[in-house]
Amino acid sequence: MRCKAAVAWAAGEPLVIEEVEVSPPGPMEIRVKVVCTSLCRSDLTAWLSQAQPQIFPRIFGHEASGIVESVGQEVTEFEVGDHVLTLFTGECMRCKPCTSGKTNICHVLGLERQGVMHSDKKTRFSIKGKPVYHYCAVSSFSEYTVVHSGCAVKISSIAPLDKICLLSCGVAAGLGAAWKVAKISEGSTVVVFGLGTVGLSVAQGAKLRGASRIIGIDTNPEKSETAKAFGVTDFLNPNDHDQPIQQVINGITDGGADYAFECVGDTGTITTALQSCCSGWGLTVSLGVPKEKPEISAHYGLFLSGRTLTGSLFGGWKPKSDLPSLVDMYLRKLVSHASA
Amino acid sequence: MRCKAAVAWAAGEPLVIEEVEVSPPGPMEIRVKVVCTSLCRSDLTAWLSQAQPQIFPRIFGHEASGIVESVGQEVTEFEVGDHVLTLFTGECMRCKPCTSGKTNICHVLGLERQGVMHSDKKTRFSIKGKPVYHYCAVSSFSEYTVVHSGCAVKISSIAPLDKICLLSCGVAAGLGAAWKVAKISEGSTVVVFGLGTVGLSVAQGAKLRGASRIIGIDTNPEKSETAKAFGVTDFLNPNDHDQPIQQVINGITDGGADYAFECVGDTGTITTALQSCCSGWGLTVSLGVPKEKPEISAHYGLFLSGRTLTGSLFGGWKPKSDLPSLVDMYLRKLVSHASA
Repeated sequence: MRCKAAVAWAAGEPLVIEEVEVSPPGPMEIRVKVVCTSLCRSDLTAWLSQAQPQIFPRIFGHEASGIVESVGQEVTEFEVGDHVLTLFTGECMRCKPCTSGKTNICHVLGLERQGVMHSDKKTRFSIKGKPVYHYCAVSSFSEYTVVHSGCAVKISSIAPLDKICLLSCGVAAGLGAAWKVAKISEGSTVVVFGLGTVGLSVAQGAKLRGASRIIGIDTNPEKSETAKAFGVTDFLNPNDHDQPIQQVINGITDGGADYAFECVGDTGTITTALQSCCSGWGLTVSLGVPKEKPEISAHYGLFLSGRTLTGSLFGGWKPKSDLPSLVDMYLRKLVSHASA
Repeated sequence: MRCKAAVAWAAGEPLVIEEVEVSPPGPMEIRVKVVCTSLCRSDLTAWLSQAQPQIFPRIFGHEASGIVESVGQEVTEFEVGDHVLTLFTGECMRCKPCTSGKTNICHVLGLERQGVMHSDKKTRFSIKGKPVYHYCAVSSFSEYTVVHSGCAVKISSIAPLDKICLLSCGVAAGLGAAWKVAKISEGSTVVVFGLGTVGLSVAQGAKLRGASRIIGIDTNPEKSETAKAFGVTDFLNPNDHDQPIQQVINGITDGGADYAFECVGDTGTITTALQSCCSGWGLTVSLGVPKEKPEISAHYGLFLSGRTLTGSLFGGWKPKSDLPSLVDMYLRKLVSHASA
């Protein structure tokens, strides 16, 4: 079939709306009519950054909701008309990590970086016979896309597709980092660096877990009001302080927060987050994808004195197993969507 | 009183056996006749390294067993003649961390780096009226030393002081890193970098926790046999391989170990340890004190894909609360002493 898609022809160059050919879904694949897609910072990073694989022409977009248009051979779990969320990190449900019960990092359908489909290493998009590459197994900046059936999850048809779209990346990533990865304990102090969709969702997750103090850090003063709506109790703008922000945080928290979350996508901020945590049990969770300088640097003493650094991809949620419950929570108004 | 002590007059200069004056214990202090002391790599690091605080003259030694010679005012838990282990990281049992149940990092008597006593910031050693500084609140390279009563623990008088001496640092540090900090799960794969006392004790702890494969890494081929006695199932010498050792480990473990322990005291090896762990749930525990280059550097992707880095000081044991049980385990032959 043919449809319109926003095609990136080269790093940093404006996307061009092109007519693209979208192949029928292969075995174990589905073709999805994209209803809503978000623009995630990671799309921008992959589009702009010379540090990322230079795979072009390419259709970005990895956070989307849609409706199944057609199904390939051997697909049993989807039917035409099903409402779905796409999954930029899939779940095969059979590999060692998927069956371990310990992680959401699937070794078969996990984070896809080469721009081709899992089965035949080819693309399902083309323009005049020439391949146009996928992004993160989703490519939702297109009216239609083809995804592996392990890279989509069926959701309730009464869920508003424009809102729950954000559960396919940003909101779920933030909520899960607080909830599943850090398992924030009641009454604790939390600091969140970067109050975009991910950071606000971390704050929301921290509030749901009963954190008593949630310190939000952003250089944009306009984030202050929105942040409060998502549970942030103290808003700090580093530009308002002469001291480094980690010193300010250590000062107001009697030696550091119990948990720190890096939601900026900057390795320097990961170090700052570590330095903002208390000794003994301070846990730093890194969520972002840095635009440059991929190496984290930190003094060994931060760890020897009891701090821990871990990462969170998609909030630790197993995408196919866990997302339907999150959608249900949204419908029951237990979580809300952050868009900043 | 006067006694002999090995005094370090300057960084890297030979220790000199001197006659030193040892003050009586102050309030909440005890004076201990040192029966056995170990020489720990951290003593060497503090003695040699320009990166450490230059506090001289100083009496090193922080891993010792002894007998209480006299007690200061207000001391109720010790009597003259009690057998004790010294504690380089103390436990006040009252501060927020001590009462948290979450850490062994005491904020009152934790790792002491200034070379003076907690109460009055003075020394209890002198030569001809001039102060000689303490090290890690212990200074066991002396026939007698004065320690805070929170920096010693009473132990069974039937325990052999020459053997259990090692439980006051190296053996406990390694056992606890495997046991209390990593909480190694049964059937898992463990890699240990550096097979000195600490690394061998990690291996022993891993074996006690039921690890099925324990890979020991050391550049000294003579460690191979000793390592097996402590539970190491695979000995690898990086010098025997053309590939970087993390690639060798990833190859033989189907993508990395479940746990890695850095027991060398080298930040580059911490990075190697992280790279030797599996994605999803790989946990790296850093135990060493680096001699140079205190900054750890690691690619953010290691964390985003589910690896965790934490540190372990004294194996996470609360020294006064937990050491008597460890001594008891030694007496029941459940753990043995590593000396390499």
